[in-house]
Amino acid sequence: MAECPSALLTDLYQLNMLQAYLDYGETETAVFEFFVRKLPQNRRFLLAAGLDQALQFLEGLRFSADEVDWLRSTGRFKPNLIEYLTGFRFRGDVHAMPEGTAFFANEPILRVTACLPEAQLVETRLINILHYQTLIASKAARFVLLAPGKLLVDFGLRRAHGADAGLMAARAAYLAGFSGTATLEAERAFGIPTFGTMAHSYIQAHDSEAEAFDRFTISRPENLTLLIDTYDCEAAARKVVALAPRLGERGIRIGAVRIDSGDLIALSRQVRHILDEGALRDVTIFASGGLDEAKLGRIVREKAPIDGFGIGTSLTVSADAPSLDCAYKLEEYAGRARRKHSAGKATWPGRKQVWRCERNGRMAGDVIGLDRESHEGVALLRPVMIAGQRMAGGPTLVQSREHAANQLAKLPPKLRQLEPGAVYSVRISEALQQLSAKVDAGLSRDNRLESPG
Amino acid sequence: MAECPSALLTDLYQLNMLQAYLDYGETETAVFEFFVRKLPQNRRFLLAAGLDQALQFLEGLRFSADEVDWLRSTGRFKPNLIEYLTGFRFRGDVHAMPEGTAFFANEPILRVTACLPEAQLVETRLINILHYQTLIASKAARFVLLAPGKLLVDFGLRRAHGADAGLMAARAAYLAGFSGTATLEAERAFGIPTFGTMAHSYIQAHDSEAEAFDRFTISRPENLTLLIDTYDCEAAARKVVALAPRLGERGIRIGAVRIDSGDLIALSRQVRHILDEGALRDVTIFASGGLDEAKLGRIVREKAPIDGFGIGTSLTVSADAPSLDCAYKLEEYAGRARRKHSAGKATWPGRKQVWRCERNGRMAGDVIGLDRESHEGVALLRPVMIAGQRMAGGPTLVQSREHAANQLAKLPPKLRQLEPGAVYSVRISEALQQLSAKVDAGLSRDNRLESPG
Repeated sequence: MAECPSALLTDLYQLNMLQAYLDYGETETAVFEFFVRKLPQNRRFLLAAGLDQALQFLEGLRFSADEVDWLRSTGRFKPNLIEYLTGFRFRGDVHAMPEGTAFFANEPILRVTACLPEAQLVETRLINILHYQTLIASKAARFVLLAPGKLLVDFGLRRAHGADAGLMAARAAYLAGFSGTATLEAERAFGIPTFGTMAHSYIQAHDSEAEAFDRFTISRPENLTLLIDTYDCEAAARKVVALAPRLGERGIRIGAVRIDSGDLIALSRQVRHILDEGALRDVTIFASGGLDEAKLGRIVREKAPIDGFGIGTSLTVSADAPSLDCAYKLEEYAGRARRKHSAGKATWPGRKQVWRCERNGRMAGDVIGLDRESHEGVALLRPVMIAGQRMAGGPTLVQSREHAANQLAKLPPKLRQLEPGAVYSVRISEALQQLSAKVDAGLSRDNRLESPG
Repeated sequence: MAECPSALLTDLYQLNMLQAYLDYGETETAVFEFFVRKLPQNRRFLLAAGLDQALQFLEGLRFSADEVDWLRSTGRFKPNLIEYLTGFRFRGDVHAMPEGTAFFANEPILRVTACLPEAQLVETRLINILHYQTLIASKAARFVLLAPGKLLVDFGLRRAHGADAGLMAARAAYLAGFSGTATLEAERAFGIPTFGTMAHSYIQAHDSEAEAFDRFTISRPENLTLLIDTYDCEAAARKVVALAPRLGERGIRIGAVRIDSGDLIALSRQVRHILDEGALRDVTIFASGGLDEAKLGRIVREKAPIDGFGIGTSLTVSADAPSLDCAYKLEEYAGRARRKHSAGKATWPGRKQVWRCERNGRMAGDVIGLDRESHEGVALLRPVMIAGQRMAGGPTLVQSREHAANQLAKLPPKLRQLEPGAVYSVRISEALQQLSAKVDAGLSRDNRLESPG
């Protein structure tokens, strides 16, 4: 599994706040919720992802002796905080939407209920985990919807933002419906199918392309894919045709050819023609090289004879929308609802729930309300951790992947078709609106009474 | 330090190729170079970064017993490869530009000279490391150039793409001239100064903003910054003015206020006015909240009274250009120059060097040539690792940061001013052009002779 980063991988201000909370005994129950304020311009829905790693983080969060010693050595913190961190365990409750659930702006996908310092301390890394996998699962879903029935493989480790991103992109893409990844560690850590052929350097290292093909096929006869665009695709396709009968005599079958550059539509047709003429109708064509939704969509619309795609950088950095406007906000403390008012960043207060209605097997509208309300439809946030312990029977990655597929199938047609203007109905309940007004009234009073100006 | 990810964090195809290389004894010396093919639209130069982590990776790369066992268990690889990986050590040479060096399209910033399987195996993670830090250092340099003399702090851990990215963004931004980061682990791992105040949740957790300010100032009197935009900035600024004399009696000084939302230019002026009227001329104003180059540029041009900036997501995901079109390509094998011809991705063959001329203290033009040539100017690629051992006396992070500052100062004025059309002269040497033609001629012959079609 992925290594657990240091407990110090957090913002300094978390420890500043914890010091103040402990000094004043401010340790009553707090409720924080993670949500996305506004969807990126190109997104009509998002897919929740990263919950498994988030819960793993919460369960495993410890300050090692080295970390505590270092904190002490900075001279910044008092003994009460050092002692608190030494024995730190997260003992809160978590409610969340299952991974793979489609969700929309302002809908909490995870809710933490814990004593204030615990709920506060986990903020930074919790956002860091949920943000990235949700970003990538949501991006991957677009490719999945664009190319039904095609093999889609994550090729993006090298240009993902660091090690953790590379590995988690493979997971999030698989969750959203990709067939697999090129990243070997993702197979070991998560059981995700891996795909891999050869690089241009392999071809270039040989004195001729034919020699490279020859040797590779003998060494790696399983799932054999030959890269044919290093020098000239058509010439290489002819070499593949020439090679096939000789391989056949040894019982080796060429599975696919890969094209990684150039006009993929034109080249795939030429290559398909050469392969078909050469009695290699079963050899599939796999394409890669800077593919994004626009290019993939065009290839699919024009019915280019490409059977599978390696999607790299555009997927793993979510190139058209490399971040989500997400937040983890305090909604309740010591039994009182709270709300942030900052311009453009006001939040809905209180402990919330999301209800979803379906009609004819399609999602038909959500309500965001207070947890204590009851509404028609299914409540999407469910308990996943009680008193710091994960609940048994959580889904496997494959089950979450099935759930995601099910969610994509249930999206209203306009959302499935990635139509730019499509909107899904999300209603704020009466009770939630009333609570917001009440919280605001309380605040104005506070400001009126105290403002010295 | 950052944890070392698994040796399996690589593309499956690397091991496929290694298997074939070993089977045929293809283990002669290979030369690979890392470079950026084309700069993103908004970049006129890049800053090289990540070399320290890249060398650490090369020096430390090992396959653990668990990893080897797992590889064996997949049944995909032959005993010769398993044995090779069990004892794997990188024993090659590395030449590189020092971290913080400004560079341009097609200029190699790192060259690996090693036996083919070693040089090949390290490709994926080497790109993954160099790409991200170079991406972020280059992005950070834009903020540094836009806001000379201002305090710039990385606030982007939470929305960076995973744990590794969060930590390395802090490093790359500091290297490029940021004053520090909010990420605590970056202080422990790299000695980078950290900054941190409080979150809105801290204010919200209290029954009134005044109480929150009161308690925080007593608990955290050092480097005291108060967040004033949770409800109403001006009202909060007045509370700060009211609080200051009481704090003064206890010897506590308010260092700064932070505004995280709204119209930062207008708000900072109002807040400055209130602070000045309240005899708090020394209290500085720190701004954050969705800042990018456009917003920062406008704030600086309009001379808003803001002294420091927290730059978050736009920095750590490099929002306007979340990836670089970079590659690690085979340029020579067994003493022969190699070149990839794929459409739009052709590379310059051979073992290369970059020479840079200066005139009047400014960079005046580069030449990309063959390593064995000599040209006017300074050769930028220097040996940094010999036979798998890092050379002693490499720069510290602070020295690399000074080098970066020096490089930014030497940029031609149009590049420093981030002018959209500005171009820097990079010439390809005669000898390199001749070698390319020669390699091409060799290739055409190869294709002519072997193509069966």
